Amino acid sequence: MAPRIAVDAMGGDYGPHVVVPAAVEAAREGVHIVLVGDEARISAELAPLKTDGLDIDVVPATQVVEMDDKPGDALRRKRDSSIQVATRLVKDGQADGVVSAGNSGATVACGMFVLGRIKGVLRPALAGIMPTEKTPVVLIDVGANVDSKPQHLFQFGLMAEVLARHVLGLEKPSVGLLSIGEEEGKGNAAVRDAFDLFRESELRFIGNVEGRDIFTGDVDVVVCDGFVGNVALKLSEGLASSMSRILKRELHSSWLSRLGTLLSMRGFKRFKRVVDYAEYGGAPLLGLKGTVIVAHGKSNELAILNCIRMAATTVRNKAHEHLSDGLAVHAGLTNGSAKSAA
Amino acid sequence: MAPRIAVDAMGGDYGPHVVVPAAVEAAREGVHIVLVGDEARISAELAPLKTDGLDIDVVPATQVVEMDDKPGDALRRKRDSSIQVATRLVKDGQADGVVSAGNSGATVACGMFVLGRIKGVLRPALAGIMPTEKTPVVLIDVGANVDSKPQHLFQFGLMAEVLARHVLGLEKPSVGLLSIGEEEGKGNAAVRDAFDLFRESELRFIGNVEGRDIFTGDVDVVVCDGFVGNVALKLSEGLASSMSRILKRELHSSWLSRLGTLLSMRGFKRFKRVVDYAEYGGAPLLGLKGTVIVAHGKSNELAILNCIRMAATTVRNKAHEHLSDGLAVHAGLTNGSAKSAA
Repeated sequence: MAPRIAVDAMGGDYGPHVVVPAAVEAAREGVHIVLVGDEARISAELAPLKTDGLDIDVVPATQVVEMDDKPGDALRRKRDSSIQVATRLVKDGQADGVVSAGNSGATVACGMFVLGRIKGVLRPALAGIMPTEKTPVVLIDVGANVDSKPQHLFQFGLMAEVLARHVLGLEKPSVGLLSIGEEEGKGNAAVRDAFDLFRESELRFIGNVEGRDIFTGDVDVVVCDGFVGNVALKLSEGLASSMSRILKRELHSSWLSRLGTLLSMRGFKRFKRVVDYAEYGGAPLLGLKGTVIVAHGKSNELAILNCIRMAATTVRNKAHEHLSDGLAVHAGLTNGSAKSAA
Repeated sequence: MAPRIAVDAMGGDYGPHVVVPAAVEAAREGVHIVLVGDEARISAELAPLKTDGLDIDVVPATQVVEMDDKPGDALRRKRDSSIQVATRLVKDGQADGVVSAGNSGATVACGMFVLGRIKGVLRPALAGIMPTEKTPVVLIDVGANVDSKPQHLFQFGLMAEVLARHVLGLEKPSVGLLSIGEEEGKGNAAVRDAFDLFRESELRFIGNVEGRDIFTGDVDVVVCDGFVGNVALKLSEGLASSMSRILKRELHSSWLSRLGTLLSMRGFKRFKRVVDYAEYGGAPLLGLKGTVIVAHGKSNELAILNCIRMAATTVRNKAHEHLSDGLAVHAGLTNGSAKSAA
């Protein structure tokens, strides 16, 4: 059976105009698409596209969560918002996963409160997937949790390893703990204690890694508290944009440079593609009873398509069952403190 | 009187061969230089340089802290190391400041234990100065402290503001608190409480800033815990290097691109200069009785020179007196918890 993915048609900076074509493309690739949002606008976007024979349903939702709505408010007061209706479809068994490029705080809150946690998960976490010089790296958590305890950090790593293995297709992903020195014993209190949990686990734990190791591609999963991860993710986006802007400015500063830039255009395009987040999917929210992918607000059609693909792969490869297995195997490492920490 | 700066001649990846010429150049600019380390090697580097009439002393030190020495060991077992001898010159009043590109953990430890804190300072902190699209930004703390309390974070901001104003020459530097959302109330427990201290202070506090704001140049001082700041600093270095490598690889992938790159060379050089850390000084360790500048291990001659310049400016502009004044003005905000937190 094809994976059924509910897509928040209203989400993101470009809304239905970008989301609907991306969803149609995913349907062409064999995904059962459920578009959720303003029926008239969705129909208008579907009209010019060839959708004959494709598995596309439309489920109406009368409200939209705005980018500046507070997650809690969105949850309570906009019960008929596209993101909440889409998430309820997963809860009610009418879809397997949900993708939204809307207000990411609201998407996370909907996932947490509507779907609930997989048994044994202490804290769901947001996995950021970032380009590197080699294969992408999974940074977890990138903002769903702050002040994480050691057992939380350990489970973040466990969940992201399942993602890396069963969704990104890495054979035996390596897991590193983000710290401020490679030696054991470096870091803050939570990281030092998490180190021991990782070392006792069955994960391929490579020890502490530092900020400079994230983008080399030499580690597959990097674990950190959501405060640190969110700063790291946004800093990376900001720095990449700033570097691109500075480069552009410098290369347009003389006629010779401009001519040179023109000749190098193909190289630049490839560079931009490597750096560009659009090629990578969004951030999966891991640990919930259902697949939730938080797409970047700026997502273009390709980015949305990649998010839907990732959601579909998660469902096809039964990542949730693998996660449950992993949690069971490692229950001894987190159970002791699970009750007090949950 | 000229500022007297003790320079660890043995420090850094390139040692005396790079440090000595940088120090001589600083002497030409009117700094009284005290070179500390292996006398024979220092003399050999000085010999071919024109040093007539310059204020350059050499103080011998028989030991060298290696890059893989642990800071505590270096402190206890290498009491005659160049970095420790240089720091003691400041302690004993024979120099006003010290610059080292050696083992940064050992440099920080020497500063902390040999010099001691300025009265009222809870925790000395390391200020990273990073290039942006506009003026450089001061990120504090970049690794001297982990698990910082709210009053520590507040003092980090206070110390960096003095640096930005009296050493970097900004008129009324803005101070932002690094968090994971701009609204008040966002962040972890320590950040939320620090927010209130900043708001009640006389600093030009602009509220929470996010990772993406660091490199825009729109905020002058960004305050965070040393764990977060260290990750941010190393991540930035790593990402900038990775982007440069990817760009280089792409631009060398065809003859047309290579020709184009050749024509754009001046633009690239300017880009590299903006991105390159060498143009900026090292990281000042703030809050100590004496000026300590931690230079990057990879520092080239220009980077070392800039560090010495920064140390000299700190002394000339009496930054320590301004810091003491700032601490006194804001004592009410940190005193209540100062004893328990110190």
